[in-house]
Amino acid sequence: MLVDKEICLRNIERMAQKASENKLRFRPHFKTHQSAVVGEWFRNFGIKAITVSSVQMAEYFAANGWNDITIAFPLNVLEMEAINRLAANIQLNLTLENKETAVVLSKQLAAPAGVYIKVDTGYNRTGIITSKTSKLDAILEVISNNPKLNFKGFLTHNGLTYSALSTNEIFSRHFDALLKLKTLKQRYASAFPDVEVSIGDTPSCTICTNFSGVDEIRPGNFVFYDLMQYSLGVCTFDDVAVRMVCPVVAKHPSRNEVVVYGGAIHLSKDSLQNIDGKEIYGRIAINKKGQTKILSERNYVARLSQEHGILKVSQKNFDLFKIGELVEIIPIHSCLTANLARNFITTQGEEIKTINS
Amino acid sequence: MLVDKEICLRNIERMAQKASENKLRFRPHFKTHQSAVVGEWFRNFGIKAITVSSVQMAEYFAANGWNDITIAFPLNVLEMEAINRLAANIQLNLTLENKETAVVLSKQLAAPAGVYIKVDTGYNRTGIITSKTSKLDAILEVISNNPKLNFKGFLTHNGLTYSALSTNEIFSRHFDALLKLKTLKQRYASAFPDVEVSIGDTPSCTICTNFSGVDEIRPGNFVFYDLMQYSLGVCTFDDVAVRMVCPVVAKHPSRNEVVVYGGAIHLSKDSLQNIDGKEIYGRIAINKKGQTKILSERNYVARLSQEHGILKVSQKNFDLFKIGELVEIIPIHSCLTANLARNFITTQGEEIKTINS
Repeated sequence: MLVDKEICLRNIERMAQKASENKLRFRPHFKTHQSAVVGEWFRNFGIKAITVSSVQMAEYFAANGWNDITIAFPLNVLEMEAINRLAANIQLNLTLENKETAVVLSKQLAAPAGVYIKVDTGYNRTGIITSKTSKLDAILEVISNNPKLNFKGFLTHNGLTYSALSTNEIFSRHFDALLKLKTLKQRYASAFPDVEVSIGDTPSCTICTNFSGVDEIRPGNFVFYDLMQYSLGVCTFDDVAVRMVCPVVAKHPSRNEVVVYGGAIHLSKDSLQNIDGKEIYGRIAINKKGQTKILSERNYVARLSQEHGILKVSQKNFDLFKIGELVEIIPIHSCLTANLARNFITTQGEEIKTINS
Repeated sequence: MLVDKEICLRNIERMAQKASENKLRFRPHFKTHQSAVVGEWFRNFGIKAITVSSVQMAEYFAANGWNDITIAFPLNVLEMEAINRLAANIQLNLTLENKETAVVLSKQLAAPAGVYIKVDTGYNRTGIITSKTSKLDAILEVISNNPKLNFKGFLTHNGLTYSALSTNEIFSRHFDALLKLKTLKQRYASAFPDVEVSIGDTPSCTICTNFSGVDEIRPGNFVFYDLMQYSLGVCTFDDVAVRMVCPVVAKHPSRNEVVVYGGAIHLSKDSLQNIDGKEIYGRIAINKKGQTKILSERNYVARLSQEHGILKVSQKNFDLFKIGELVEIIPIHSCLTANLARNFITTQGEEIKTINS
């Protein structure tokens, strides 16, 4: 996986600036890159607090000098030992979304920790529906009875913006979430004057401009972006910082197909619908005479098996592909591709290790 | 990822016995497990020759004492240096499917190697269509002119058996491939009396009984099997050796959903169609009172994000799920899940390292 560091730095700078202009704490999600090296790139822009999605990731980044970490995943009570080690050493924030877990946490937590309650503004993955205040109150009661538990506020991930059919729909889905979160914040403002609202999705953090009532943003994908964000209209190809570089091993002119070494274990099986309604697993860029050109949407990764990638290529472009040469694939979902890659290489040739190295 | 070693051993024994009864060389594909430890399990059954799908995997298994390896992936000429190192040290077999690559190989190969020509019996992934004998002849001419290149025969992967809608269809698609391969073998028998035919797919190797004209089988998935093979009618649940064990972190009774820590980076995004037409990412087993029970097809992994797995659970079973307890997911495609797992643990508690550890 090839990473363009300059693009990453620009993506980080833009998001940091936007957060600053909107008086938001910028707590980037590091699940996208899972790399201590890429993490360092964020420090130049004043980032001190981060988000991760597992206890293991929290341990990795804590070991790499990050001491303010939110684990934005519903607490897994089977990991209390590691959580206690972390809480003793860094500013750790945990995420709760049910009373059962709150009770176990309250009993077993050995050092102070911040607590966010995960709320659901309509995505229906995890979290308490914002109108179900009795459920929120039940958790808050447990939190309030334990001085080691420091209630921080409400955290959500508005994943609905990823399935929006237009940027207008991203705006409206974001606005809908804002309204719900604002109502929630107002309800709890008197009892908890410092109550925060934390949101996370890359689409709204990138293109929306109204963050009324929001205190913190936690986007992750924006550092790399990918074909999904491009298709949503959230970024341009110039903002996409990652490519999977694959050798061409076979050509089948009778069906306009090119085969690369680059399959599901490299790109992941996340897919998008192409303009022709077909599922695609990536777009193709090709380097000719020192210039990299992104081919039109009639050229795409059409099928993946474990290690094979089958590219559908328009007749016009077929001769651009030569056996033994490299092509670049723009991945659908850079988080999953980066997780599979384990190591990255920058366009400057620097090798980058990750948690999976 | 939990691996039941006893089931694996039984799966290996059965396939070894079948190969022996049908006078076939059994050259198992090690891409499924990618583990030197699991590799050792095969030695008890007389296995000396193996298949891999990348040069990197060949290097890993060569370093772990395997000295007869076929790389069943179209040769990538950019890796000639590593290929020459391997060819100098072990019996290495390479796979060709076009003349361009054959020419480069012939020029750059430094030590003797076996060569298979990849043929296509209808799957249309890679390989030369068996009737295109002029293409085969062009490659054979290059091979014949270089004494370091030892032509072994024709190799195919009949991936069509994976999309069969019934076991009958697996039989007929296998038979169709056998006919094409037999014709091919007969055509080249006089010029190459030792010409071999090598086939690879787990469905036909498991359930078919006619291997007329076949010299070698290279199945891989059978060591673990998975939900895909179960759905094809190729194996029973008793033959599936792997489970992803995931903690329950949330329950949402209003939509009959249970959330586990176990997402696309654990299970992979390979999916199947469930009886109700919905895409599913795994079936669910649950351990109660020491007994593991596989829940009916109305209980399944309905959605995956990077680290979340959303289970749809029938109302009847909803109370079986407790926050903080573990559930077992039967993966759709064990090869991809094993690749993501990096390490396995056996039901006896042994930790197993892989190429990705």
